Amino acid sequence: MKIGLLGFGVVGRGVYDLTATRDDMKVAKVVCLEDVTLPDAEVTKNFQDVLCDDTIDTVVEAMGGLHPAYEFVRAAIEAGKHIVTSNKALVASFYDELIPLAKEKGVCFRCTAAVGGGIGWLSELERARRMQTIEKVGGIMNGTCNYILDSMTRLGLTYADALSQAQALGYAEANPTTDVEGIDTWHKVILSSNIAFGISLDTDTVPVAGISKIKASDVENFTAHGLVCKLISTGKCQDGKVSAYVQPTLVKQGEPESAVPANYNLITFVGAASGRMSFYGQGAGRYPTAYNVVQDCADVLAGKGFYSPYGEKVAAKNTDVLSYYVSGAADSWLKDNTQETWGDAIITKPVSVEEMHAWRKANPEAFIAAFAEN
Amino acid sequence: MKIGLLGFGVVGRGVYDLTATRDDMKVAKVVCLEDVTLPDAEVTKNFQDVLCDDTIDTVVEAMGGLHPAYEFVRAAIEAGKHIVTSNKALVASFYDELIPLAKEKGVCFRCTAAVGGGIGWLSELERARRMQTIEKVGGIMNGTCNYILDSMTRLGLTYADALSQAQALGYAEANPTTDVEGIDTWHKVILSSNIAFGISLDTDTVPVAGISKIKASDVENFTAHGLVCKLISTGKCQDGKVSAYVQPTLVKQGEPESAVPANYNLITFVGAASGRMSFYGQGAGRYPTAYNVVQDCADVLAGKGFYSPYGEKVAAKNTDVLSYYVSGAADSWLKDNTQETWGDAIITKPVSVEEMHAWRKANPEAFIAAFAEN
Repeated sequence: MKIGLLGFGVVGRGVYDLTATRDDMKVAKVVCLEDVTLPDAEVTKNFQDVLCDDTIDTVVEAMGGLHPAYEFVRAAIEAGKHIVTSNKALVASFYDELIPLAKEKGVCFRCTAAVGGGIGWLSELERARRMQTIEKVGGIMNGTCNYILDSMTRLGLTYADALSQAQALGYAEANPTTDVEGIDTWHKVILSSNIAFGISLDTDTVPVAGISKIKASDVENFTAHGLVCKLISTGKCQDGKVSAYVQPTLVKQGEPESAVPANYNLITFVGAASGRMSFYGQGAGRYPTAYNVVQDCADVLAGKGFYSPYGEKVAAKNTDVLSYYVSGAADSWLKDNTQETWGDAIITKPVSVEEMHAWRKANPEAFIAAFAEN
Repeated sequence: MKIGLLGFGVVGRGVYDLTATRDDMKVAKVVCLEDVTLPDAEVTKNFQDVLCDDTIDTVVEAMGGLHPAYEFVRAAIEAGKHIVTSNKALVASFYDELIPLAKEKGVCFRCTAAVGGGIGWLSELERARRMQTIEKVGGIMNGTCNYILDSMTRLGLTYADALSQAQALGYAEANPTTDVEGIDTWHKVILSSNIAFGISLDTDTVPVAGISKIKASDVENFTAHGLVCKLISTGKCQDGKVSAYVQPTLVKQGEPESAVPANYNLITFVGAASGRMSFYGQGAGRYPTAYNVVQDCADVLAGKGFYSPYGEKVAAKNTDVLSYYVSGAADSWLKDNTQETWGDAIITKPVSVEEMHAWRKANPEAFIAAFAEN
């Protein structure tokens, strides 16, 4: 396999390192804007040098961002090259174009590192689907949020201090919006649901609430009640009905999710035969992520296409009914739906996920967290 | 694929059910001693009916026990049939015979359900080995022990009551020795190490301490010190040195292992590139186990042989130095090696795993538990 590598940042460099000593795959050309010299690969600033090179059979996209990643990947598929990417935003956003196009052109499309970094999550969903129906996917999919929430819970830090510390350690970006508002998790649960259930989720129907409004006083409330707050994604497909959402969630101390430390992920599927299966590991980082990119290259060599058949467009129906913790807001809807109060915070009567997120959209200063089912 | 199924107990029945609706594999004959009638499979008490049937290409062994499972599996390999088994005792005990023989005869040999029930653990080790060196394997591999320890910790039960409850729920057998003395875990870590490191462990060099001597007072001691006791296996391969052992281990509250409830497993490998990867699920049960058996059948159809090359015989060198909690014993070695006391129990100075297990062998009434590394 001759690889054209797009991007030479954290992941790209890792891919280069991990493939350096292999016989079955080799990075032949690297596209990056920085001045880099490599002993055994050509470095270019021009993507056309990869696109027009017929000896390159596989494009590894490690640039991140939607543009020009989308244009490059699309052009590479059109040119009959296999695609390996770790870019969850790209795959989740252009699912309906890229996946059918890859099939039409007969090229492999793999993106295992897009969810869970080094965890073999999407590849395990692919394996699970051979033998059973998957009923549920989700969990802790974002290391930045988990690091912040864990620091607030274990060390009593404020949100601002926990975020600063995460940034200092490289676990959060200078602009943390994509992570802390749950967008990264949202991309991941959409992609996971698409693959697990063989559908294409209408992304507009998947609500997301992040963690940026959480206060130290909220965490004190949770601890006092034996609860731990985690940002948890949910995708379900039961009796043909699909639901999907991302929200801070309160799990009991002692539950597996409550014990996930630092920047780790804990991702779960529930299968009709296997029952609950969870995967725990670092959801990011150079070598864990590059590891799964290189695993994908091996799967391309083995002729594996995409993880599941491209399926029909489906709108999520989020009629699940949950109780929520709400702080930082007060209005008549909340008043009508109050079950009890924890200090200044409100515990709602059971309300639908749909209704709660609609309210939150109109009250963006509020912090909400769902009580975990069961 | 036409399957000859040996055994029609918990797992065998599950395999029959899960394959019933498939086009790519079919249970053609079932060998069992009970009187069973099946609509679409021949039932026989005579293994020769499977062995001599040339239309049967794959034997699924779901009988358990060493004999006659070993003789049947060996004969089936000799006859050129692929093998799928969930029998960890069989594979760990006859590794040096069965794995090379399967290779010689050109048949596939799969045993994913032997470790972790429904967890795709051995298949993930196989995948990991394509891309990286595995440095460590192990974890909570026995649901019976975890159920007992969890009940003692969370509910304050005595060992005897926790065991009775596990038996009443079907999580422990009438004769629980294999589970509670750690033999089941021992088989699993030996098999996992063999596959992860590409070796054949000398089983005599792998010490095992079980949980049968633990008392409620021990658990009270642990809880008072913020610790949780779990039966944990360890296999390591670093700089060519292999160590492997099974022992009750004290992990800090809040560590992932501490939060594993009921009869769940949490199994981990550490890879040079991926870092720590853990797998959490039910390690037993009809459908989880049968699920991985059927996955193995699919891998046989895909032409997958064994998980890793058969490797050289290696003796474990258990020179790791740990502190231990010891109760129920008093002698001069213990006195000389006491660091501190917790009530009647002793915390040892750091001693080698080898030395501690040698002492325990001479003092079988004692309960020992290692303090987890780090």
